[in-house]
Amino acid sequence: MSFQNPVFIPGPTNIPESLRKACDMPTIDHRSPLFGQILHPARKGVREILKSVDAEVFIFPSTGTGGWETALTNCLSAGDKILAARNGMFSHRWIDMCERHGLDVQIVETPWGEGLPADRYEEILTADTQHQIKAVLATHNETATGVKSDIAAVRRALDAAGHPAMLFVDGVSSIASMDFRMDEWGVDVAVTGSQKGFMLTAGLAIVGFSPKAIAATKSATLPRTFFDINDMTAGYANNAYPYTPAVGLLNGLNEACTMLLNEGLENVFARHHRIAEGVRAAVGAWGLDLCAADPSVYSDTVSAIRTPDGFNATDIVTHAASKYGVAFGVGLGEVAGKVFRIGHLGSLTDVMALAGIATAEMCMADLGLDIKLGSGVAAAQDYYRGHSAVSQKDAA
Amino acid sequence: MSFQNPVFIPGPTNIPESLRKACDMPTIDHRSPLFGQILHPARKGVREILKSVDAEVFIFPSTGTGGWETALTNCLSAGDKILAARNGMFSHRWIDMCERHGLDVQIVETPWGEGLPADRYEEILTADTQHQIKAVLATHNETATGVKSDIAAVRRALDAAGHPAMLFVDGVSSIASMDFRMDEWGVDVAVTGSQKGFMLTAGLAIVGFSPKAIAATKSATLPRTFFDINDMTAGYANNAYPYTPAVGLLNGLNEACTMLLNEGLENVFARHHRIAEGVRAAVGAWGLDLCAADPSVYSDTVSAIRTPDGFNATDIVTHAASKYGVAFGVGLGEVAGKVFRIGHLGSLTDVMALAGIATAEMCMADLGLDIKLGSGVAAAQDYYRGHSAVSQKDAA
Amino acid sequence: MSFQNPVFIPGPTNIPESLRKACDMPTIDHRSPLFGQILHPARKGVREILKSVDAEVFIFPSTGTGGWETALTNCLSAGDKILAARNGMFSHRWIDMCERHGLDVQIVETPWGEGLPADRYEEILTADTQHQIKAVLATHNETATGVKSDIAAVRRALDAAGHPAMLFVDGVSSIASMDFRMDEWGVDVAVTGSQKGFMLTAGLAIVGFSPKAIAATKSATLPRTFFDINDMTAGYANNAYPYTPAVGLLNGLNEACTMLLNEGLENVFARHHRIAEGVRAAVGAWGLDLCAADPSVYSDTVSAIRTPDGFNATDIVTHAASKYGVAFGVGLGEVAGKVFRIGHLGSLTDVMALAGIATAEMCMADLGLDIKLGSGVAAAQDYYRGHSAVSQKDAA
Amino acid sequence: MSFQNPVFIPGPTNIPESLRKACDMPTIDHRSPLFGQILHPARKGVREILKSVDAEVFIFPSTGTGGWETALTNCLSAGDKILAARNGMFSHRWIDMCERHGLDVQIVETPWGEGLPADRYEEILTADTQHQIKAVLATHNETATGVKSDIAAVRRALDAAGHPAMLFVDGVSSIASMDFRMDEWGVDVAVTGSQKGFMLTAGLAIVGFSPKAIAATKSATLPRTFFDINDMTAGYANNAYPYTPAVGLLNGLNEACTMLLNEGLENVFARHHRIAEGVRAAVGAWGLDLCAADPSVYSDTVSAIRTPDGFNATDIVTHAASKYGVAFGVGLGEVAGKVFRIGHLGSLTDVMALAGIATAEMCMADLGLDIKLGSGVAAAQDYYRGHSAVSQKDAA
Repeated sequence: MSFQNPVFIPGPTNIPESLRKACDMPTIDHRSPLFGQILHPARKGVREILKSVDAEVFIFPSTGTGGWETALTNCLSAGDKILAARNGMFSHRWIDMCERHGLDVQIVETPWGEGLPADRYEEILTADTQHQIKAVLATHNETATGVKSDIAAVRRALDAAGHPAMLFVDGVSSIASMDFRMDEWGVDVAVTGSQKGFMLTAGLAIVGFSPKAIAATKSATLPRTFFDINDMTAGYANNAYPYTPAVGLLNGLNEACTMLLNEGLENVFARHHRIAEGVRAAVGAWGLDLCAADPSVYSDTVSAIRTPDGFNATDIVTHAASKYGVAFGVGLGEVAGKVFRIGHLGSLTDVMALAGIATAEMCMADLGLDIKLGSGVAAAQDYYRGHSAVSQKDAA
Repeated sequence: MSFQNPVFIPGPTNIPESLRKACDMPTIDHRSPLFGQILHPARKGVREILKSVDAEVFIFPSTGTGGWETALTNCLSAGDKILAARNGMFSHRWIDMCERHGLDVQIVETPWGEGLPADRYEEILTADTQHQIKAVLATHNETATGVKSDIAAVRRALDAAGHPAMLFVDGVSSIASMDFRMDEWGVDVAVTGSQKGFMLTAGLAIVGFSPKAIAATKSATLPRTFFDINDMTAGYANNAYPYTPAVGLLNGLNEACTMLLNEGLENVFARHHRIAEGVRAAVGAWGLDLCAADPSVYSDTVSAIRTPDGFNATDIVTHAASKYGVAFGVGLGEVAGKVFRIGHLGSLTDVMALAGIATAEMCMADLGLDIKLGSGVAAAQDYYRGHSAVSQKDAA
Repeated sequence: MSFQNPVFIPGPTNIPESLRKACDMPTIDHRSPLFGQILHPARKGVREILKSVDAEVFIFPSTGTGGWETALTNCLSAGDKILAARNGMFSHRWIDMCERHGLDVQIVETPWGEGLPADRYEEILTADTQHQIKAVLATHNETATGVKSDIAAVRRALDAAGHPAMLFVDGVSSIASMDFRMDEWGVDVAVTGSQKGFMLTAGLAIVGFSPKAIAATKSATLPRTFFDINDMTAGYANNAYPYTPAVGLLNGLNEACTMLLNEGLENVFARHHRIAEGVRAAVGAWGLDLCAADPSVYSDTVSAIRTPDGFNATDIVTHAASKYGVAFGVGLGEVAGKVFRIGHLGSLTDVMALAGIATAEMCMADLGLDIKLGSGVAAAQDYYRGHSAVSQKDAA
Repeated sequence: MSFQNPVFIPGPTNIPESLRKACDMPTIDHRSPLFGQILHPARKGVREILKSVDAEVFIFPSTGTGGWETALTNCLSAGDKILAARNGMFSHRWIDMCERHGLDVQIVETPWGEGLPADRYEEILTADTQHQIKAVLATHNETATGVKSDIAAVRRALDAAGHPAMLFVDGVSSIASMDFRMDEWGVDVAVTGSQKGFMLTAGLAIVGFSPKAIAATKSATLPRTFFDINDMTAGYANNAYPYTPAVGLLNGLNEACTMLLNEGLENVFARHHRIAEGVRAAVGAWGLDLCAADPSVYSDTVSAIRTPDGFNATDIVTHAASKYGVAFGVGLGEVAGKVFRIGHLGSLTDVMALAGIATAEMCMADLGLDIKLGSGVAAAQDYYRGHSAVSQKDAA
């Protein structure tokens, strides 16, 4: 395996050198105070990145999917009613998980490419005068379509309806890359993983629970052991886990939080926005459209790019890998074959983004699309020249 | 943090240099054929280490505890009857998990320090003429007490009773260090993790399912998504996971299997036995007893050492860490304060073991126990001199 | 420090992941047979890369400059006459070293940008009927100007003159990246370092001595100890050095040789040529000239690019570093301020090269040069699309 | 290769985890200000460790032997008279280097095992009324015999004789492990390397020059280029080297200095003394003698242990490597076969030292020496228990 080129998949991202070193750690005793010196600052760092004061952060040796399961099994009981919109592959999967766990999901089908319909949520919640809906699911950033949704609007819908349902947010591909405000938006469970904005390898489910969500664990009867947050709480009090923690990855998470907070969250978000804008400028120069319906829902972490009818977008991904050694993301589910995706989150520079754009151009030209070589690169260069980071050197 | 001294906890073990490097891997596309070149050989290697021809191996970003949950949720339904003996902290925890998942466990209380009572299993199974017991749990090596159990005897009990219950075995602290024969013993689900015999960091639940266990998933109704083996099977067929895999750790697992199989499993087991015998010789020279009741149940991966009445064994662990920078294991549950544990599994040499023994001696002397300095070391040296490995250099 | 972007300096190059890991090695006994298992294959690998059967390879903990000193001090005596052309900074420095060691150098001043004047060498050698010239120096690839010289022609000059002088060749920035034929060209001492074609960090002087050069050490009286090849020979016979070797770096060198030879030397050279051609296509598209006078002397490892009169080329390098976090090479000596350099040797892909070209474009535009964004990128893309490697994945 | 056991050679030492990571660094531009941020603090750190205010520190990609050559070639001219004692292999080699560089060495033959004869120095210097002696060589710690010499006494000899000769000190195996006072002792050139007290791999010659030594370069005519300190000075002023520096190793040196200075030099020296005392206690318990003649010359970094007449001490080293995978040092030169050496410098703990002592015991017993197993270990344990570090965890 050669590892020369950066990856442009929407996570796991390229890993900063310092984080690789933080993770590559010799064995320590995970039941010793030494471990607490890793665990507690990591949890504190995550909470700060969630922009929360009150949340408790739990970190499982798992992935974002395990984070979803943590949210459901700790707070809900079989037969509980859930409200969720389906506008992409990841919202679909979370809904599927609910159903497999015996929850009763009211699904709001939403076109792939659009954001969550907060207005529909409000109608449904208002109609639920018995407050049978126990939780509302919201995917902050649909990784499959490159669509960001307005979580603040979902909160407003809940508030307008005067509805007490919990708000569970999938922030897997947004948190630590795009603005996320757990407290301000009244999020009850926020779910993410290690391999996106935190720039680490996959292997950690990272969840924040509001006091209300924690209280809900008392009455929730879905079976849970591995993902039980109360076992975690008891363990944390002794600098420990209920089982063996992934110490190196936690050490990396701690370091990642330090990096991100030192850079400044707003700077991190601005950096992602800048790089994304360059990619979008390239897409425009190619004459192509994003899957995302309009600028208000453009994701700053991943762009799903529609290719012309009759063209199999997946060929771009296959060709880039085999001819140029570069990884892009394929389309998933409804948009399989219709889009290819450029991930632009985590550890990335303008210069790396240009390499990805240039590669995409070559691939599209190789495969017969009418793309002018250098056109997308020029558009992105133009943007980056005028919107450079204050100090690229200090970025992750 | 200083990382100079080896650890002597019963896992995670010391990590071989080559495995640290295998895990510390830049990002690749986990949906590409490249990933399949890691995944499939790793699964094949594990199967060979399980001494199985028929088993399907599933690897989750999780831990051994998640492996237990995989066994239960994929094969069982709420209310199912389970037979299990409790002879230490880890068998206790698995039983607790069963109960939290709504299973009906018939518990055979067994003194901590003794092995699983196969004869009692046989009685109970024979009495269960309606075959209500769906699964028998067996902890191959109780990490808390340093006790190994006879899984072949459990199989004989099932066979003698003509009972069709599935046999689930926790081999977390035995597999890849001590002999384990999945097919010969008729094990239906074998559970282990990455951080013991495989010498990696924690972060993988590794499970083997027999065809019978796989068939049981059809009717099992316990809710599962993250740990669903059928989703895994579907993913594996496409060189992928249902979610993001822990690629570096899988790469390490693949390399670990190669190392172990190149050394030869019988050599690996003999190496663990030899090092364990040296530690036991030291314990004898100190005039102390093992928690394990008799030689037939001595574990080759961890020794739990009883200290005199009135002495808090945990002080040894605390003192070793603070004064000498060495990690031993504390006693857990019933034997908390009564034993301390020396882990001797994974990547270890005679020379490293002697360092641990020498440290334990100093600690016990420091804390007022009547231990002659050098006595345990001399007993272990004597053993190691006469039972040296053919080639220590080639060991992991 | 961020390490996200590749470097485009003409060495040290980007380091392949596998070589970083090979170098990052725990301590072993450098007087043990284990060390011989690193040393001897590394020396053998270098000899094969030199395309030599007879040469003895010596490897010093030093740099290419130390390799020059090794050549001089082992083969020559104070007052010896040397023939050398000066056509760049590195040929200049080697001449300077000769003079500081009391050698009498006949210098053929040659315009920077041109190759070594083999015809002038022939005239001078023919005129030296007394054979007072003991050695001819030849810089195979002038890193300062991006100019390659014709070493075969220098050999023909010596042969045509029937002159017995030794031929010392500086191959620091050519060997292992461009074709080098020690035996066929009758090279007596070949000098290189670890940080160019071998893709490692700086720290090793690597030299090949012909039997004739070794014989010359008998009568050479320049003082030498650290760089004495006969001490090395004696050490090597015992798997050792006369002092402490740089074991990890030697391990990396061994691995680098394996990588290069597995890829196939002609493939390695073709890869460098292809990437260089793309860079040159970009330079052409920008309307700029190379420092190298004509295509016959174009270097495949570094391009020195002339900027318009009145423009300080060094500003590009400074600007690229501060604004975009990318390292190019400045002009040195006579061409300081007149050229900037793009190194394209070692571990590099088409995609990485495009990132460098795109960055250079942005910098030149930022600094007011009349460069059309995307123009150089498009020219390089066009070349790379049509001349792709058989398998980029297998490249270093 | 397995890397499980620590090494007990007298350098290169075991490498702390943090230093391995500091050295394993991606490529940066070594002509950029970024490099200055590594170089200058490293030089400053070394100066502080030399306990000097005035010295200039030069760091070459080389080894201690190169440091010796730096001292000679920068400060002396062919035919210059040198005073040196020969009491071991390393003082022998430096003398040999002098002779090969045309210097006229007055050798004071001194029994191997004894320190430098300051009184003889004083006699000779006093007799040299013409001040023909230009430099006095002093090996601070003879690595071959485990003998430390009194450099302050050599300075007193020079002062008592009123002699202006420069004082060159080989501190390769003392500096950064044992007290060294460049200014107080009036040392003109101090020589060391990266692979001993600095705990890094070999690859750097580290030298400190007093103002007087720097002034001597003006008139010194020995040829030098690679090791020329004035070229270095010119380079350093521009954050650069006259050639390509070993950036990663310099980064490691910078980090090593930070570690050592944070620990506190006196703590570092005390730590080495404590560990050495334990080893010496073991030697005493074995009934063996050190090569070092008496306690006043015992080295705190290496112990050379005499074995009984008729026994080949080298067999211990060979046997330890082949049977136990542990590296000790062989005897060199006059004491080859008569001693084996335990290096106890750099990154080492009490616990690691005990492992080495236990291994030596097993080897000696295996080879038929009358050694009681555990006896040396017990003596060392007894010492370490009573003289523990304040905080082992904070040590390197």
